[in-house]
Amino acid sequence: MATQNRQWILARRPAGEIKDGDLVFRTDPIPDPAKGEVVVKTEWLSLDPTNRIWMSDIPQYMPPVALGAPMRGLICGTVVKSASDSFVEGAAVMGLGTWSDYACVPAAMVSPVPDIKGLPRKDVFGQLYLVGPTAYFGLIDIGAPKIGETLVVSGAAGAVGSIAGQLGKALGCKTVGIAGGKEKCAALIRDFGFDHAIDYKNETIEQRLREICPEGIDIFFDNVGGEILNTLLAQMNLFGRIVQCGMISVYDSEGAGAAPSNYPLILMQRLKVQGFIVLDYAARYPEAFRALAKLRLEGKMNWHFHDIAGLENADNALRMLFKGQNAGKLIVKVAGPF
Amino acid sequence: MATQNRQWILARRPAGEIKDGDLVFRTDPIPDPAKGEVVVKTEWLSLDPTNRIWMSDIPQYMPPVALGAPMRGLICGTVVKSASDSFVEGAAVMGLGTWSDYACVPAAMVSPVPDIKGLPRKDVFGQLYLVGPTAYFGLIDIGAPKIGETLVVSGAAGAVGSIAGQLGKALGCKTVGIAGGKEKCAALIRDFGFDHAIDYKNETIEQRLREICPEGIDIFFDNVGGEILNTLLAQMNLFGRIVQCGMISVYDSEGAGAAPSNYPLILMQRLKVQGFIVLDYAARYPEAFRALAKLRLEGKMNWHFHDIAGLENADNALRMLFKGQNAGKLIVKVAGPF
Repeated sequence: MATQNRQWILARRPAGEIKDGDLVFRTDPIPDPAKGEVVVKTEWLSLDPTNRIWMSDIPQYMPPVALGAPMRGLICGTVVKSASDSFVEGAAVMGLGTWSDYACVPAAMVSPVPDIKGLPRKDVFGQLYLVGPTAYFGLIDIGAPKIGETLVVSGAAGAVGSIAGQLGKALGCKTVGIAGGKEKCAALIRDFGFDHAIDYKNETIEQRLREICPEGIDIFFDNVGGEILNTLLAQMNLFGRIVQCGMISVYDSEGAGAAPSNYPLILMQRLKVQGFIVLDYAARYPEAFRALAKLRLEGKMNWHFHDIAGLENADNALRMLFKGQNAGKLIVKVAGPF
Repeated sequence: MATQNRQWILARRPAGEIKDGDLVFRTDPIPDPAKGEVVVKTEWLSLDPTNRIWMSDIPQYMPPVALGAPMRGLICGTVVKSASDSFVEGAAVMGLGTWSDYACVPAAMVSPVPDIKGLPRKDVFGQLYLVGPTAYFGLIDIGAPKIGETLVVSGAAGAVGSIAGQLGKALGCKTVGIAGGKEKCAALIRDFGFDHAIDYKNETIEQRLREICPEGIDIFFDNVGGEILNTLLAQMNLFGRIVQCGMISVYDSEGAGAAPSNYPLILMQRLKVQGFIVLDYAARYPEAFRALAKLRLEGKMNWHFHDIAGLENADNALRMLFKGQNAGKLIVKVAGPF
């Protein structure tokens, strides 16, 4: 076993975009677990929009990462030291860890990697946990789609958005995806089965939606917030649902641009707007796993990975996410076996 | 039977506050009903915040009143001419009519005045229809109160707000009312049983809420919108519900001030925000009537009327509503018997 533990430390809260020095790469000794903790040798590190939230000290759904502490992230790996009754050494686990070769975390933060027939561990970690349940519970519980309804997804080429669109399609919705750039929009149609794609970098969303959805919009699955949200508010049908899954456009901006001037349409159109965090649904993950694995094994659920090699590249890779430069679920290969 | 029909005509859409000449008082012949219509001799006319919405041409939940047409309002009266199979002459009805001595409306727009044991017709029309069901369905269906939760109501001294607060209290909530002025705040405690009152004209809502509700807020029943809504967003508990019943602060302002900068907290706190219009619940009005009548007859439901004498005073009376000058449900006595 190695003795060195490379890890990314949150040295400074980013002002706007993440900059050099906000996260610093440092080598520490491999920690010893305190009672109730485990040390996980990280194999995969997931990079997600919510990472940016944790780096700031805006009000949020769990405590932000403390300055000077290792950066928080979703990891998958093997327990190498255990001071918990829950896990033996050698157990394969995934959960909330840190951007470290060896992450020391309370045992309650991780859970066994479920064995899902036919799916490789990379899919189980990278797509079914937590990306898939985010798309699933947001769409099913809050969006409550009905056959024949129209679903619009923002950030549609992203990890959550692409699954949300395919779930909507599987449930009989007309699906429209919004993404940035010709390449991503082509993928929406070709790889993720969206009926229509809107390229927000080269098209006017408002006008394109009026052309594509003259019937109006029943469900808006929003990963983006800001101007796109405000535009959608104006085209929602009566009793429409807005699944407020993310607001990636405002995480970087200290909330500027986050106030939708069309808010009164929530009243006029009797809309439901609901925020959620997938962690709230932990007790029901098996329901999402079953649904997503079934569609996957039937060939009705496509997903992409964007692999990054090496923990040392995690910082730059996270920045890609906020520039829309990734082409699939961002995942860092920290240590084999892959 | 008289031959003259005095009525208020919408001559111009108000820009901001309602001004002289937006509505004009005119005398017309008593109309004859077309097939399917009835002519109702108006006894009571209800004045409601939503009247202001109907006068403008912003996007809204039903078509705005056409320019040159009689102003729309909720009325109670007697059918004096019928060209409909639904009503005979002499039937007591209430529903969507016009600001007229004699309102000519499609029969489907009105319904028989329900006979609710122990309640005078004025209460049935003025409080149970549509004020009571608005408070009832907003609180019960969207707010979903649980015993021990904290409910904050804006516009709490108003017709809907005062009932919402009493319903919350009856269901075991801690209730906090927000109203403007010492007089109204005294009424919140004395007449409507709120646990606490906040005078937004003389107190800082944010600070007072932190004092009164250190436990946070579970349900916000909002009649006001704008700055008060934005303040409340920042103090909602996880999984809180915002009942978006009205936004009286922005109806006059062409939407200015309607964009809440704290919108991202909907995501962070996993809030549900839902707009509704009581008309959506028409099939379930009897449920609300039963609940409200029971509480009323048990002495657990107080309400106030602010009577205005004469149809000719309806225009000025409606303006009182937006200045917060009324002290109870505004109702115009158009013609006896009262």
